[in-house]
Amino acid sequence: MDPAEFRHQAHALVDWMSTYLEQVERYPVLSRAAPGDVRRALPRQAPERGEPFEVIFADVERVLVPALTHWNHPGFFAYFASSASPPGILGEMLAAALNQQAMLWKTSPASTELEETTLGWLRHLLGLPEGFEGVIYDTASISTLHALAAARERAVPGVGESGLPSGTRLAIYASDHAHSSVDKALMVLGLGRAALRRIPADRHFQMQSEALAAAIDEDLAGGTRPMAVVATIGTTSTTSIDPIADIAAICEKRGVWLHVDAAYAGVAASLPELRPHFEGWERADSIVVNPHKWLFTPVDLSVLYCRQMPALLAAFSLVPEFLRTAEGDSGVRNLMDTGIQLGRRFRSLKLWMVLRTFGAEGVRAVLREHVRLAHLFAGWVDADPRFERIAPVPFSAVCFRARGAAGQSPLDVDELNERLMDAVNATGELFLSHTRLDGRFVIRLAIGHYRTEQRHVERAWALLQQTLEGLGLRA
Amino acid sequence: MDPAEFRHQAHALVDWMSTYLEQVERYPVLSRAAPGDVRRALPRQAPERGEPFEVIFADVERVLVPALTHWNHPGFFAYFASSASPPGILGEMLAAALNQQAMLWKTSPASTELEETTLGWLRHLLGLPEGFEGVIYDTASISTLHALAAARERAVPGVGESGLPSGTRLAIYASDHAHSSVDKALMVLGLGRAALRRIPADRHFQMQSEALAAAIDEDLAGGTRPMAVVATIGTTSTTSIDPIADIAAICEKRGVWLHVDAAYAGVAASLPELRPHFEGWERADSIVVNPHKWLFTPVDLSVLYCRQMPALLAAFSLVPEFLRTAEGDSGVRNLMDTGIQLGRRFRSLKLWMVLRTFGAEGVRAVLREHVRLAHLFAGWVDADPRFERIAPVPFSAVCFRARGAAGQSPLDVDELNERLMDAVNATGELFLSHTRLDGRFVIRLAIGHYRTEQRHVERAWALLQQTLEGLGLRA
Repeated sequence: MDPAEFRHQAHALVDWMSTYLEQVERYPVLSRAAPGDVRRALPRQAPERGEPFEVIFADVERVLVPALTHWNHPGFFAYFASSASPPGILGEMLAAALNQQAMLWKTSPASTELEETTLGWLRHLLGLPEGFEGVIYDTASISTLHALAAARERAVPGVGESGLPSGTRLAIYASDHAHSSVDKALMVLGLGRAALRRIPADRHFQMQSEALAAAIDEDLAGGTRPMAVVATIGTTSTTSIDPIADIAAICEKRGVWLHVDAAYAGVAASLPELRPHFEGWERADSIVVNPHKWLFTPVDLSVLYCRQMPALLAAFSLVPEFLRTAEGDSGVRNLMDTGIQLGRRFRSLKLWMVLRTFGAEGVRAVLREHVRLAHLFAGWVDADPRFERIAPVPFSAVCFRARGAAGQSPLDVDELNERLMDAVNATGELFLSHTRLDGRFVIRLAIGHYRTEQRHVERAWALLQQTLEGLGLRA
Repeated sequence: MDPAEFRHQAHALVDWMSTYLEQVERYPVLSRAAPGDVRRALPRQAPERGEPFEVIFADVERVLVPALTHWNHPGFFAYFASSASPPGILGEMLAAALNQQAMLWKTSPASTELEETTLGWLRHLLGLPEGFEGVIYDTASISTLHALAAARERAVPGVGESGLPSGTRLAIYASDHAHSSVDKALMVLGLGRAALRRIPADRHFQMQSEALAAAIDEDLAGGTRPMAVVATIGTTSTTSIDPIADIAAICEKRGVWLHVDAAYAGVAASLPELRPHFEGWERADSIVVNPHKWLFTPVDLSVLYCRQMPALLAAFSLVPEFLRTAEGDSGVRNLMDTGIQLGRRFRSLKLWMVLRTFGAEGVRAVLREHVRLAHLFAGWVDADPRFERIAPVPFSAVCFRARGAAGQSPLDVDELNERLMDAVNATGELFLSHTRLDGRFVIRLAIGHYRTEQRHVERAWALLQQTLEGLGLRA
């Protein structure tokens, strides 16, 4: 494809992308594809001869588009949303063309320094002190893995060199509601999931700090070394908030690394009225915040803020000869020193464009509106005797369920709710996901897409009511 | 930014991107920015109010472009090149707009199944048997980490659950020339770099298989469990090739996992005339190949082919309630089960577009030309008594150096070569990197960019000759 042809095709693609984004509500949110649809529609081998882009793109429309779940749809209320906002897409387009690989400062000064600048902006927006240095990774799972590797290095200096010493028992603490990325990090780090102490949560799904203190002290007394506590601001199921200030005090007293998982909710620290939810997080050793969740940045972009950068560097820095540079000796940061990955995309570009296009004021306005919509929806749930709300709504997600008929067994009520969720999802107008709380099937409506407006939330509620009535009649 | 404004700005950006790619040779390959240039040119905080895209883009041109190292430049001969080919950029543009997050099949059937299809195409192109299942990760470092985690799971079943058992000693084997990602993986996995046995290489920088067998047998006799061998096809310094067939036999006999690092050179298996270099790699347990290196795909996209998918799944699968799906119970793959990362970009799209646009024939033609150019350059080096070639050229990279004047000390010759490299890099016309072999400073010219033509290699040689003469006069 020569340059002129690229220009032509890229313009055509931009038109398609623009129309797609304008008309995304025409598609069902959740794909209606059946397993194997895409695989069966494509040949088993690459073509021997190159094909014109028009032919390739015809397959995008024929084969791929029907198999998309539309994360861009304003009715995407499942999990946590991810928004491909216009400046985010423009940033990715430019990043793809520039194709920077920022392993070393000199292989991309622009990418290396823009990452530092942009993460400084975000840190300021979130009200975190300057002691937190930021690093961009792809996902929260990788950010948390790096945080826990740094914590392990601090607990067992030299572990990267010598490995986990025989006979050293380490423990990590997180609530029942912590994200599975904590488990995965422990599986990778050689500690095993068995090293995870699940601290019980209270009825608001918040870690019980007394139980945490007791568990740590019990381990200390028994010769197990407490390595880290993972506390969460905005848990995945209910967006509950662990008591960070209490937990920070417990960790400080005992010299335990505190990692705060604020992957979803962290950006809400930019709202003064929600800042109390974050009280104490500035005392953490590390914090993960994902702009690709609630900050209108296309996947992937996760940020780790770390107050213990020497531990992170000790855990990961390793410079082979072919990557030695004069700059590396004179104090610039080479991003490869801060992680597993040597190769680094120019991820900061999209976040920088998002922050400039929205402005701090624009970011706060969208977040504030999402929180307002969540409370609106929660109010409707609370006012309808056929439904019940299952958790507080500190941010923008609501956990709720249909109560079921009097005398229905818990299993029947679970099934009713599962059928309710599947039925509204089948309309194609919205996509809800579920969780299980205290053993019960619970529906989640999470608002976080920058295209979501009040009418979408109203429509979701109307569909839930209508569908429940339909199920009730058949029950 | 409303949809109409996005359309307008995206078209303007496409024009800029197209012109940039057409005129990339006007820029110096290696950025001339000084540390701090970007940081100092930008404000310390995000703007309070959103800004027009024209203002943002003016800063891209003013601040960022001068701080780019141009990986797109056909004179990029450093490290291993990465090409943002037109179909690769188009794929990234579309991926950004679609913003798929393929953690579960149902959150993106298109992305999940296109990954399987595209990796099937690539596997066929490389001549690997169907027993190899592929997974896309971001970088080779992450692919190798996953391979070694799977190997660890096979060596110590249940390690993900229980952690590394006290008293169990594990060892990993790789040559002196293996990539630093092996070290990093061991640092992360809790084994420590001390678990790595560096097997000496022969004078062609290839692992000595007898030394490998002896090291494994010594460990076995001493009660250390051999966990994995990492053999390389196309080492980072010299692109040397470990004797894979011999190593495979050694591993099979002793039940040791064989991971083959073919991150750079793997795609060359598509050339029948180079297939002998890959003899035996089909006996590996896992292989890493990076399309973002020599397959014209923008960063990031690394592929892990694994013949032991159950071990990989055992090492990483973990399904929390909020991610349970009906499809997950009925045999579709949920990509989150094959790795640390839960979030997954739609990376296969760009590779699929590259393979279709080039066609198998087109891919082979470009690779073949790069190999031809490397041999051409190696021939010039060999014919010039002022230079010497330091390593064989099995693929597309040439290691060489100026011999220096008779009687110059080794340190002086090293310095001469470093000055030579820095001086040609300072012209802005090309970018060479270095390595150290047998203690000596060695210059590398690695050809791998799809825009590189014979005239660029000729120019590199002319610049090297002229510059050496200039240095000689001053010496």
